[in-house]
Formats: sequence, structure tokens, C-alpha cells
Amino acid sequence: MEIKVIDGGVCAPKGFKANGVYCGIKKPSIDNQNPAAPHKNDLGMIVSDSECCCAAVYTTNKVKGAPIIVTKNNLEKTGSKARAVIVNSKNANTCNADGVEKAEKMCELAAKELNIKPEEVIVASTGVIGQILPIEPIEKGIAPLVAGLSYTGNEEAAAAIMTTDTVKKEYAVEFSAGGSVCRIGGMAKGSGMIHPNMATTLNFITTDVKISAQMLQSALNDIVKITYNCLSIDGDTSTNDMVCVMANSAAENKEITCEGEDFENFKAALYEVMMNLTKMLAKDGEGATKMIECECRGCPDTNTAITVAKSVVGSTLFKCAVFGEDANWGRILCAIGYAPAEFDINKVDVDIKSEFGEIAVCRNGAGVDFSEEKAAEVLKSDEIYVIINLNAGENSAKAWGCDLTYDYVKINGDYRT
Amino acid sequence: MEIKVIDGGVCAPKGFKANGVYCGIKKPSIDNQNPAAPHKNDLGMIVSDSECCCAAVYTTNKVKGAPIIVTKNNLEKTGSKARAVIVNSKNANTCNADGVEKAEKMCELAAKELNIKPEEVIVASTGVIGQILPIEPIEKGIAPLVAGLSYTGNEEAAAAIMTTDTVKKEYAVEFSAGGSVCRIGGMAKGSGMIHPNMATTLNFITTDVKISAQMLQSALNDIVKITYNCLSIDGDTSTNDMVCVMANSAAENKEITCEGEDFENFKAALYEVMMNLTKMLAKDGEGATKMIECECRGCPDTNTAITVAKSVVGSTLFKCAVFGEDANWGRILCAIGYAPAEFDINKVDVDIKSEFGEIAVCRNGAGVDFSEEKAAEVLKSDEIYVIINLNAGENSAKAWGCDLTYDYVKINGDYRT
Repeated sequence: MEIKVIDGGVCAPKGFKANGVYCGIKKPSIDNQNPAAPHKNDLGMIVSDSECCCAAVYTTNKVKGAPIIVTKNNLEKTGSKARAVIVNSKNANTCNADGVEKAEKMCELAAKELNIKPEEVIVASTGVIGQILPIEPIEKGIAPLVAGLSYTGNEEAAAAIMTTDTVKKEYAVEFSAGGSVCRIGGMAKGSGMIHPNMATTLNFITTDVKISAQMLQSALNDIVKITYNCLSIDGDTSTNDMVCVMANSAAENKEITCEGEDFENFKAALYEVMMNLTKMLAKDGEGATKMIECECRGCPDTNTAITVAKSVVGSTLFKCAVFGEDANWGRILCAIGYAPAEFDINKVDVDIKSEFGEIAVCRNGAGVDFSEEKAAEVLKSDEIYVIINLNAGENSAKAWGCDLTYDYVKINGDYRT
Repeated sequence: MEIKVIDGGVCAPKGFKANGVYCGIKKPSIDNQNPAAPHKNDLGMIVSDSECCCAAVYTTNKVKGAPIIVTKNNLEKTGSKARAVIVNSKNANTCNADGVEKAEKMCELAAKELNIKPEEVIVASTGVIGQILPIEPIEKGIAPLVAGLSYTGNEEAAAAIMTTDTVKKEYAVEFSAGGSVCRIGGMAKGSGMIHPNMATTLNFITTDVKISAQMLQSALNDIVKITYNCLSIDGDTSTNDMVCVMANSAAENKEITCEGEDFENFKAALYEVMMNLTKMLAKDGEGATKMIECECRGCPDTNTAITVAKSVVGSTLFKCAVFGEDANWGRILCAIGYAPAEFDINKVDVDIKSEFGEIAVCRNGAGVDFSEEKAAEVLKSDEIYVIINLNAGENSAKAWGCDLTYDYVKINGDYRT
């Protein structure tokens, strides 16, 4: 099956409008220094022309943002149906006594203006934890937000969820399923678990595929496991993380209700969207200068592959070495060694590659001679690929991360104030 | 029972000699820039006048340094008896094809010069992984090393295990057990799992207590769990970590062979030594400017307390916030929330304190108003204490770490070359 990359982000699928505005939650004094900067937007919306079937996964942190609680409740009430997303940045609406009330209020405001039910609204917030969310800017902003909704509003919406993100993150693809051309689009914010204070990593996915709620949730669970959950920026798990998919059936394909070729095609397309958003998140990790992709091959099962690959991209020490362009393979081997998985370390091979070449650094668990000159060349790239082979099976998986830099420390050393 | 802090490090207990020399494993060009610098030493030794009963714990990393393998074998051969420790810095002798052979050679060299058996020697190495250990410097250095052994050589030995450590780490106490005055002394290197490439965190403990091997191992296991294993610098688990205790019976106390008051006294004294070495390691974390101690109280059991306290000191984001002197309690709550333990997040209280004062930042899982001015004052200290209360029981535990700074990134960004 061919999967074609297309423009349009969350508006690429048929029947989805979006918009983003500046309503005044972000400080004008800071965010208007460059009034043209797209991330001055702080209130965003996605709306489907018709009812959507939804699936979502949420943070596993015991501290859950109020919007997560309200969204979960809403999807339970409606049996996983929704029409719209409302989302603000700059304030996570988490750890506040009135958090749930405010999140419900956001749903009510959106619902009233869109003439739908409050429980048909998915609500999300991203920003500082533990500061009361000012509702007035949202009350004022909701009318212009809805008035400006359009089938090409995806960029305004993507800008409205940015916090310290330096670039908007959107991706969309076109593919075939059930006799129709279908589309999946997505937008994301936050570079992994980069800011518990800019607390949220949000991923909104839209699709015009016709699919049952059960199969949609099943696909999302499978793909989250090998994309978004394989992303490590700093190991912190934030309070407001959410990935949700809305499917509005506008592609008029034969409904996907069970496993089979159509479902596999849908999952393959969903993987492309979520994997590419994951890579964008890794690349835009706070202060990051290099994206790291680690693939672990030759594993007895996928879980082993995921565990080992994540251990490497999560190693603070290896992240520093990548920043320093130091071919410090001992740190890779060390991180492989403490991964909680069963395998023979004496069979492990490691290679490092980039657009500038490839070097073998470890065979059978021991170092091999390599040219430091060549290694330095390989590590100059801003995309570093580590390939591990456990030589113990046929399964593989990838994980993504970024280097650890002075700027990460700077950004996080004094974020809140 | 009174526990008195005394001088002398590993030579504080009766009957232990030590020494350290520069034999040429470290680069003279670098290490002799300041020839007076104590850490130019790269070969160290501890010797007991009589046979010791030993206990040890080792890294759980699958990649194990060759010295770990050889030490384990030796202690198995002798039934946990030993007479001496030989240790080098600058090279971890790990991931090398000839690692075990070289580590055994170190034991032989030491044994020959000391006129003991090779299997009575505990061997350890700390330094870069995957570089062949040059044995010639050790062959040449062994005679002067042994010739210089003395009952006051503890500082030279402590210097010989330093890598990027900025200070020597020694601690010793005196206490009573079994009708005698007894002593425990220790030295340590490496700030937690700071360098997989300067790979080792080594802790050597000596004591003149008379105690059975079984009770010694039991005491070490208990105390390691609440001291050294509660230390987090960067989350990496190194390949060569080892803590060993040698007990030579020179205090002539009634032998400790079972649980009871003497055993408890011994454990309390061992805790003092290992806890204070742990704090020194935290304080000297790479690039660290502040030590962080997190105490988790009010827990249903000790494991919960340990898990939660470690999660907080291990949070990269909180570590950055401490560096930035930002009272970012949301990050503490976030780290509590993702700790793998069972408790009600809505009962959690958090306070931050230092020599400059104390502030309550969170009650019942939600933020409370506090003076930012006061908070800034509290955070100016170089020792920051976080007190968490789960309000769910009577157990507590502490964990230690340090802030994450520009210098950490600098040190680890280009360590190897």
C-alpha cells in the first residue's frame, strides 16, 4: 500500500475545521515582542462537521491534569463520541482546586458557541502546573476562535498549542482503505516530557476514515506503544499527556470493524503520522541540537527491543556524549546493560551512523577499533542513528530522543519565573 | 549508643594499612599539571594485618567490569575472606577481551609483593570502558606502593581512586559493640553513576569489628539499600560499581553472629559511614552546585518511601530547577506522581527547606501560596532538603542527588577524548 505525505495537518482529512487565536493567557509583554510569531496563539480548536468516533490515551502519572479528567468523563458519557477539541497553552490547569470546574467551563463555552453538547468536547491544557487558570480570556476568545474556524486553519491551531516548542509540528498522509481514499492528519506540541511545568505533551490526530471505536482504540494503543511511548527527552512523565484520535467517517470507506487488510493499512498510515510527529518532538527537545534514533534489532520479542532502545536514548550520559560529538560507545553498552530485559550481553553488536557515514563500535559485547576521525565525521550530523543487534531473534523496534545540552539546563533552570 | 566521628578513613579501624601512588596510568601531561594535586595517584591499596571476613555488593548492570568478575571469584574461592584491596583509576578494565586476565594479574602482583595468596586480594578498577588496561605501570608501581603502606596512608589511597572527583571522600566512626570500642572507616569515589566512562563508583569500608561473614553481608545489604542505592546523580547504572566491607576482628569484641543489640549498633555505625559517603558523592556530583536530600515520610512501608524519594532526586527537570533556584514544586509533585508506588496523591504534602528557612509548597496534592522571596532565599543554600509526607503510614526514607548544571553537560559532553 502506498502512503502519500500531504499538506494540511489536522485539516487534511475531509470535514475538519480548525483555528487558533491569542486570547490573553500568554503574557502579551513576552509573546507580543514579535507579534508575527505564530506561537503567540494560546487558544486552539478543531471541529468536525459530523460526529466523530474517538480514541485516547492519557498520562500514567498519578497527578492528572483536570482537563484529562474532564475529557475522560466526557468520552465515557458519549460512548467515545465527540465533535470538537478546545485547547489552551501557557497554563496546564493542573493541581488547582478549581481545575475540573474550569475545564468543564471550557467545554461549555465551546459547546455553546458551536451549538453542540458540552460532553462532545475534548478539552486539553498545557502550561505551568499549579497556577489558577484565568477563564476570562477564554470567555472573550471563544467567539473569534469559532468565527475564524476554517478548513485551512490547521497552522493556527498547531501554533496555539506551542509552549517552548520552536516549530509547529504537523503531519498528514493519504492512503487507501475500504475502497476509498482516506486521510490522517496530526498536530503535536511539547518535546516529550520536557516540561512538567509547561506540563503537557499533546497529540491530536484527525482522520476521515470510517472505523469502529473499538478498532480505533486498538490501533491507537498499538501505534502509541511503538512511537510516542518510545520517545524520551528527559525521562520525566508529565501530568497532562494525551493523545487522541477523532474519526469522522467522511471518507465513506467500508467501515473498519475487525482486523484485516484495511485495518493494517490504517495502522500503517497512523504509524507514519505518529512516528513522524514523534521524531519532530525528539528533534525539538528542549535545547536539543541533535535527534537520536536508536533501533534495536535481533530481539526475541518486540518488548525487549523497545526496552533496550529506550534505555539507550534515555541515558543522560549518552545524550551528553552525542552533544559533544564523542563516539562514546561504552555509554551505549552501559545503557544496554542496565535495560531491564533478558539477553546475552556478549552477543551484542553496536553501530553508529548518520548521513555522513557509519562505524562499527562494538562486536560481541566488546569494543572494536574504529577511526576516531571517521567517528567525529559521522557525529557531526544533526540526526544520529544507533543500531543495536542483540543477535537473539527476529524482532526490532525504534526509540527516539535528543542530546542533552547547555540550553536544556538553561531553559529548565528558570522556567517558571 | 553514641557514634563518634573520627579521623583516619579506611585506616581508622585497627590493623589496616593503606597507600596510593602515581604509577603512570593517568596521563602525566594532564595529571602533573599540578604535581601537588592529590588525585594524580592512580594506584591504591588497603591491607589488613590479619585475615578479614568480607561482604560485597556489585553493580546489577549486565555489562560487568572484569575486576568485578575476578573479585567475586576470589571471594567465592576463599569463602569471603580477604587480606587486601588493589585498585587503579583512569581505566575501568571493562569490555576488553583480556580484562579478566589483567585483573587476575593485578591480584598476583599484589599477592606476591604482600606474600599472600592471589585469591585473598580484592581488585577494582575505575575509568574509561573499553580501553586495554596497560599492566606495565602497575608492575612497576606495585613495589613502591607496598613499600609505602602505613597506618596513616588512607588519604593517599583515597586520592588514588579519584577520577573526576573534586574532593577525596572519607569518613570514619567509633562506637561500642560486644564490650569493645570498635571502628568503621570508609572511602569512596565517583559521584553516583556519573561516569559510565569513568566507569566506577567504588566504596571500600574497613572495620575492626569481629563479625561473621553472614551477618556482615546482611548488614551491608540492609545499609546499601537505604544509602548508596538511594543516590541518584544521572540515573545511569555503571558497569563497575562495587561496595565492599572488610572486617578484621582487631577490636576483639565478642563476635557478632546473630541479630541483637550489637548487630544493631554495628548497623547504625555502618549507616553513619555509608550515609555520609553517599552525601559526599551527591555533593560532588559532576558539575553539581547543590546537594539535594529528599525525605519521604508517612509511608505505608519503607520501599514506598525509597521509591518516591528516589523519583524526586532523579527528576532531571527538578534538578534543573534546583540549579536555577526556582521553587518549582510542580516538578516535585510530578516526580512523586510517576513514582511506581501505590498511594493517594491527594494526601501528599511537600515542604522545601535549607539552612535559610523552610516553606510549605503543597498540601493535599495542591499548591499553597508561598512567598517567592522566601523561596528564593531558601534555595540559595548549597544543601536543599525536600520533605514529602504521604500521610499514609509511619515509615520514611531518604534519597540523595544533586542539581543538573551546565558543567555536567560540559564534563560529559567530551569526556573520553
